Amino acid sequence: MNKDLILRLSKYKRLLSKLKALGLERVFSNNLGDAIGVAPSLVRKDFSMLSLPGNKRGGYDINLLIEKLDIVLGRDKPQEVILAGCGRIGTALMQYEEFRNEGIKIIAGFDIAPENVSKTSGVPIYHIKDMKEFVNKNDTKVGIISVPDSAAASTLDLMIESGIKGILNFATIELRINNKDDLRSKANGCTIHNINICLELEHLFYQVNVLNETTTEEN
Amino acid sequence: MNKDLILRLSKYKRLLSKLKALGLERVFSNNLGDAIGVAPSLVRKDFSMLSLPGNKRGGYDINLLIEKLDIVLGRDKPQEVILAGCGRIGTALMQYEEFRNEGIKIIAGFDIAPENVSKTSGVPIYHIKDMKEFVNKNDTKVGIISVPDSAAASTLDLMIESGIKGILNFATIELRINNKDDLRSKANGCTIHNINICLELEHLFYQVNVLNETTTEEN
Repeated sequence: MNKDLILRLSKYKRLLSKLKALGLERVFSNNLGDAIGVAPSLVRKDFSMLSLPGNKRGGYDINLLIEKLDIVLGRDKPQEVILAGCGRIGTALMQYEEFRNEGIKIIAGFDIAPENVSKTSGVPIYHIKDMKEFVNKNDTKVGIISVPDSAAASTLDLMIESGIKGILNFATIELRINNKDDLRSKANGCTIHNINICLELEHLFYQVNVLNETTTEEN
Repeated sequence: MNKDLILRLSKYKRLLSKLKALGLERVFSNNLGDAIGVAPSLVRKDFSMLSLPGNKRGGYDINLLIEKLDIVLGRDKPQEVILAGCGRIGTALMQYEEFRNEGIKIIAGFDIAPENVSKTSGVPIYHIKDMKEFVNKNDTKVGIISVPDSAAASTLDLMIESGIKGILNFATIELRINNKDDLRSKANGCTIHNINICLELEHLFYQVNVLNETTTEEN
């Protein structure tokens, strides 16, 4: 499955959970399409490809959809994350309420100076040198990097060495896995997503200052 | 220009600034390609399309490249941003040091309860009802939304009504411009980028739990 499809499935899942909370039991492809901004035919195509059942008259059973999507998205397994770099962004993420709503849990924070990190989030904070042991013991697979740029590359190495397989990077240095790297064997199957807030803003400035386009919508 | 090209140009710009700070004066397309993860031929194509000068023997003049890229990227104009929603993520962004390094400045924060927001960032905080007046007076074009999901849609309306043309949205609700909207005439030319941290993590979980792919790299 490609990234667009996975993102759509996650969006269906989130919307369906909200509709369920409102007491709805069934939903039509055009409701989902309207809310997510895609054609109803694409919603039906996504669901039929995944063998998700539905019919023209009655629509889709919300409970059944949620159950199937959870399996497809691997959400039936625990969504536990570690975080490296407990500065301002890191601390904000440890206290991010949306994670709780989505079933995502930051189970530990790592920092070079754990004694200076505020404990208000309730997330235990350890020294960065203890990451490998923690990850092995807890079989954690996903990590967030929110360290200063100068420490981003070494933190990536440490996460890969610890056995982390999915990394969300907030440093403004774009992290990639170097094929020539000694860590290559351990990096096998590791995926990195870079969220570069500066680049996103720069792109907006570019569009606003230079392009003066007509209505554009993007993700 | 498409988004990929703009992002590449921003990356060249950032890297060149760092190389300049190290005392370098000239750079070759393969240096840039290596650092950014693209083929040297693509670097040369990007630069020739933009009429950026260079030659095989001497490489590119770093100062000249930075100057040209600044103009192309609209970076010769001030990069001032407002922010709506001064909770944990908003406050972390107001104190984000990388913005300073990149010439981006959050010039005001807006909140429904400005009296409760910490002033440690040095950014002035106003009531959200004062946004329109502020934006008009300062001719601000770019805004960040970091309000709770329940307030995201109304904040988008307020930003558009105020005249903001580029919006970076951190709420987990995907904001789009509704074509049927009364605000359509004002929304003309408005671009929204959605950064959904939950979706990014869910995508990583999906890849880690379900796919178990071989080495993958993504942005």
